[in-house]
Amino acid sequence: MQQLTVELGERSYPIFIGSGLLEQRELFVPFIAGKQVCIVTDDTVAPLYLDALFHTLEGYQVTCVVLPTGEAYKNWATLQQIFDALLASRHDRRTTLIALGGGVVGDMTGFAASCYQRGVDFIQVPTTLLSQVDSSVGGKTGINHPAGKNMLGAFYQPRAVIIDTASLRTLPSREVSAGLAEVIKYGLIRDEAFLGWLEANMQGLRNLDHDLITQAIARSCAIKADVVAADEREGGVRAILNLGHTFGHAIEAQQGYGQWLHGEAVGAGMVMALDMSRRLGWIDDASFERGVGIVREAGLPVRPPDSMTSADFIRLMAVDKKVLDGQLRLVLLRAIGKAVITAEFDTEILQATLAQSNP
Amino acid sequence: MQQLTVELGERSYPIFIGSGLLEQRELFVPFIAGKQVCIVTDDTVAPLYLDALFHTLEGYQVTCVVLPTGEAYKNWATLQQIFDALLASRHDRRTTLIALGGGVVGDMTGFAASCYQRGVDFIQVPTTLLSQVDSSVGGKTGINHPAGKNMLGAFYQPRAVIIDTASLRTLPSREVSAGLAEVIKYGLIRDEAFLGWLEANMQGLRNLDHDLITQAIARSCAIKADVVAADEREGGVRAILNLGHTFGHAIEAQQGYGQWLHGEAVGAGMVMALDMSRRLGWIDDASFERGVGIVREAGLPVRPPDSMTSADFIRLMAVDKKVLDGQLRLVLLRAIGKAVITAEFDTEILQATLAQSNP
Repeated sequence: MQQLTVELGERSYPIFIGSGLLEQRELFVPFIAGKQVCIVTDDTVAPLYLDALFHTLEGYQVTCVVLPTGEAYKNWATLQQIFDALLASRHDRRTTLIALGGGVVGDMTGFAASCYQRGVDFIQVPTTLLSQVDSSVGGKTGINHPAGKNMLGAFYQPRAVIIDTASLRTLPSREVSAGLAEVIKYGLIRDEAFLGWLEANMQGLRNLDHDLITQAIARSCAIKADVVAADEREGGVRAILNLGHTFGHAIEAQQGYGQWLHGEAVGAGMVMALDMSRRLGWIDDASFERGVGIVREAGLPVRPPDSMTSADFIRLMAVDKKVLDGQLRLVLLRAIGKAVITAEFDTEILQATLAQSNP
Repeated sequence: MQQLTVELGERSYPIFIGSGLLEQRELFVPFIAGKQVCIVTDDTVAPLYLDALFHTLEGYQVTCVVLPTGEAYKNWATLQQIFDALLASRHDRRTTLIALGGGVVGDMTGFAASCYQRGVDFIQVPTTLLSQVDSSVGGKTGINHPAGKNMLGAFYQPRAVIIDTASLRTLPSREVSAGLAEVIKYGLIRDEAFLGWLEANMQGLRNLDHDLITQAIARSCAIKADVVAADEREGGVRAILNLGHTFGHAIEAQQGYGQWLHGEAVGAGMVMALDMSRRLGWIDDASFERGVGIVREAGLPVRPPDSMTSADFIRLMAVDKKVLDGQLRLVLLRAIGKAVITAEFDTEILQATLAQSNP
């Protein structure tokens, strides 16, 4: 088992990474303050892992909430199911919520924990590659609004992140690819050597080779923890974690949440960010091709859906959370391994990027 | 103008108290980070003060949201109106929400600010006595759930509290009395001398004598700021601010939100807490009578509604946020000016208190 720490002063917390952690009761106990626990999961994950976790937590008063699966349900109505269950079973302020599932379950459970009785503890137990390498770490929680993804939420840190790599065995390969999008992102924004390692090992990663995938998760979490520790509430540098996400969120919104997986949209979005960085003269053609190559090798789309126009992008990106004083800000690359967030770009170059992506 | 500070490290903020502050643009400007402002108010306050504040904020991009008035609307559906307006007018992360109204508007606006794009700034401009002396200070925000008052929310501090005492001129006398309930509370829990001053000046306070009411607001805010600074997230001492509130919330819930004003329910609830403290032998009959006397002098009910049974109280108090590990905790008095939160009481004494309140 590997252990990392997200350094946030009194809100610091550990990340445990290993196989079979779901059954290790002693990992959970130190992070459960009271006698009550509420496991939140979805109807895809519940049949696979809910029994195991329920058994691990024997002796606590355990309430289980099984949500419908998918981004389309990441809204207030679904969140209400968690609150209703907590209140029906009289969970008090000392209760601990446990998110057992992918990014949607983690985001919603964290937001529910931040709101319930003005804040209770929660633990992340991510079961998808994407949530293990990205969304479970860093305390971004929330739900979607019809007008924009993750528009409502809180910065609210978990007490611990417990990553059981054994849960990846049941993950469909399309979801493995989606998770690899975020892994590739860390290489592109912060660590060229890691990108090289990913290029050398992409086939093994897609096959979920145990040692390789554990290394990839650990390195991804380490980079994320580092960035979050430097800028918890995204006043600055943390925004670089959104490489490809402004374009990607627009794709997700236009297609209807859940049609494209988040990681797929991020894959195509990163290619658009690479293309725009090249058009700005910040990276060369070889770097662009390298970026496109690894996204493709991961089994991800390298362009947005055919049905999507430049006008769609412009309209949907205008509500991005990175917009300030009416100005769109984008995460772009100065080089492989060096991302910046900037509003300093020629709008025509953005237009050309959008036009090129669907000529 | 008087100025106090709530000392919370980097989240510290000022409280300004004076007449005509709504028109003083220079008070607002330092707390508005961007170009966008959203004033949230209700349909009672809007006709009285919205124009004035709108005029004060000339030059900003101002969005106004007018909510239906009252505790019955303190729910997610109403909160959604704020989010919809913010998104429709493309408010970004640098926007500032301004709560113009009573406790319901303040609680909802604060909660909206805590959630919108994972947190934006907000300013409290309380217009009722109750919100000026209590709810606008300290960062408790939230909405009701059918199963309990303020069950969903956040601890989220405003950037400033701007108290314009001139807005009390339009306040119905029933609401003045409701506000005085919380003023009396500060005397009972923390400051016997202040209670004596209130006894000596109650008629002038009910008549909204300018100097008296300003003094009462300032002393109330000072006590609240002091308690909040010591315990922002109610891990301990802050709970004493809830004297009478556990009984009071049960009354509000049983009657249907909005039938009894919050301050009225707290008035009757404080008398119940005084009665129970006496039954425990913690305060003497004279102290009890003194407490009942000032609640009555303030024009507040001193007993719960006739229709409410002991069983109603037991059922509704079981979901109180102060319940821990299944045990009800109550704020009671060791003496006038000295409150404690405790689970150390004989259940029979609670039963006797409930039975006595409606014999």
